[in-house]
Amino acid sequence: MKYKDAGVNIEHGKRVKDSLLTHVKATWGKHVLSEAGAFGGLFEVDPEISSPVLVSSIDGVGTKLIVAQMAGRYDTVGHDLVNHCVNDILVQGARPLFFLDYIAAGAVTEEMAGSVVRGIAEACKANGCALIGGETAEMPDLYRKNDFDLAGCIVGVVSKDAIIDGSAIVPGDRVFALPSSGLHTNGYSLARKVFFDELGFELSQFVDELGCTVAEELLKVHVSYLQAVKELGERVTVKGLAHITGGGMVDNIPRILPANCDAHIERDRRSAPPVFEFMQKKAAIPEKEMYQVFNMGLGMIVIVGEDDAAGLRNETDPDLIHVGEIVAGKRTFIFS
Amino acid sequence: MKYKDAGVNIEHGKRVKDSLLTHVKATWGKHVLSEAGAFGGLFEVDPEISSPVLVSSIDGVGTKLIVAQMAGRYDTVGHDLVNHCVNDILVQGARPLFFLDYIAAGAVTEEMAGSVVRGIAEACKANGCALIGGETAEMPDLYRKNDFDLAGCIVGVVSKDAIIDGSAIVPGDRVFALPSSGLHTNGYSLARKVFFDELGFELSQFVDELGCTVAEELLKVHVSYLQAVKELGERVTVKGLAHITGGGMVDNIPRILPANCDAHIERDRRSAPPVFEFMQKKAAIPEKEMYQVFNMGLGMIVIVGEDDAAGLRNETDPDLIHVGEIVAGKRTFIFS
Repeated sequence: MKYKDAGVNIEHGKRVKDSLLTHVKATWGKHVLSEAGAFGGLFEVDPEISSPVLVSSIDGVGTKLIVAQMAGRYDTVGHDLVNHCVNDILVQGARPLFFLDYIAAGAVTEEMAGSVVRGIAEACKANGCALIGGETAEMPDLYRKNDFDLAGCIVGVVSKDAIIDGSAIVPGDRVFALPSSGLHTNGYSLARKVFFDELGFELSQFVDELGCTVAEELLKVHVSYLQAVKELGERVTVKGLAHITGGGMVDNIPRILPANCDAHIERDRRSAPPVFEFMQKKAAIPEKEMYQVFNMGLGMIVIVGEDDAAGLRNETDPDLIHVGEIVAGKRTFIFS
Repeated sequence: MKYKDAGVNIEHGKRVKDSLLTHVKATWGKHVLSEAGAFGGLFEVDPEISSPVLVSSIDGVGTKLIVAQMAGRYDTVGHDLVNHCVNDILVQGARPLFFLDYIAAGAVTEEMAGSVVRGIAEACKANGCALIGGETAEMPDLYRKNDFDLAGCIVGVVSKDAIIDGSAIVPGDRVFALPSSGLHTNGYSLARKVFFDELGFELSQFVDELGCTVAEELLKVHVSYLQAVKELGERVTVKGLAHITGGGMVDNIPRILPANCDAHIERDRRSAPPVFEFMQKKAAIPEKEMYQVFNMGLGMIVIVGEDDAAGLRNETDPDLIHVGEIVAGKRTFIFS
């Protein structure tokens, strides 16, 4: 008996890995000290960062994976994964240093693993982040042949005195938001149910209300807010940032509020991507549920002081939406 | 329609997470600056480390998970995951700083996720490593109800001048090994085939040759070599370390050899755990295959200079096995 008889092909796995090296190495800068094939990735901490604090997060992309698999399109979920993680550490003021990915599948093919890692590497490069490690596991007894799962871990850095934690937020502060491209990576169990079970749509179906096919809508890439937040930070003091992921604004905004503050969001929804209203109407999803499951068009919440806000509202930046203000309260999200 | 109708119960997921906080917080020391519920975990780099280099690795535990699931025993795989990752960065001289875990399942239960995270937290504490982040994803359409996958990412640190990379290895150096407890986390697709398909054993079957049940043998915990290697490092100069995982000694020893060196391993196998010989005989697995799939009783390879070796061989440390030497060659593992 040999390992191959147990469904695992070591040689094939090695070939897939070797074919990805070019993409992976393209993300490396002078801080990466390890060679390909090392047990761990080595990343040198820049001595110019004073009082460095590492900020780290691990995540997956949920069942957006199933849509990718149905569509046979594997590169976009790699971008989703990286951008999601970049945003998760960005809210504490960190910029990304390096990333590691985990892919598990029933069968590791060059088409799937190759495309996923290429997407991850491209997104890492775009975010100035080195892809220094990864694991690709072939587990035919755990995953069906075409099924796979994907997780990624990011490590970034922020100087201790530049950590953003929401503690400076006071009543009177203004709440802005940066727009999402669509569902990003949350609520896909519900969205798939709406599109495929309730409406009986195929991926290739063109939906007039959305202006694109179901596949195009559901695979829209999660936006990285790194550049936008960096630019904002150069103009104003950012007091708080909330990445709107699972749990929506309902759960994610309170995570950064002081105990005596509420975030009061009043919003003209006409500017949101139409996918949210479309799903809500078609499947009769309660309003509160929508705001707890989906980002509702707002991917990143930005809280600034009243004075700074005045300057921002005079700008004609279409990507910065004024959505509400901070009021005295008890760490709650209020929508009206 | 609500999110619950799509098979995802947000409230339940939150309760499981809250119940784990005590275990998670027990791993935190003064370097952890974040509170529970933060978007990213914050870890302060100790200013006393000169020229800090971060060493990071991501991994899973392969289909040892399936054995855990069959046995309904979920804590040991958490230990396996952490210890495996600790060893992967230890080979470059790094000590662990922090860890993040990813659990994906058809149904996130307190029994499963709770036990897994408790195991991870216990192992983190034992290795002096803070558990600062994690993601638990419930994906009923991707995983069968009782199936789950598990991955973890570790970040450690080493001073730039203390990185161990094998470059100092020369012919004449001696090769030692630290014993494994059994299969550790590699070769489970083959091992499960041998025990369950070929031999038709149940998990509860007591196997005389092994001195324990099949479940006990297959769930033996992956050893962390952190303490043993630390103590060795205080006595001698460690020139190279190889963690024997997937690919066995055949693939893992060459990863640290200079281009002009071979590792020549001559070994009395009587001291190895009996599980390797048992499987080889019962399933007629070729010798070469055994050494490429399993650790064969040697979990960590340690290479030291000839002079240092003389001292080590006089010690009566039963856990340090002299297994061979470095000879002139071309980066190959030679077994005889």
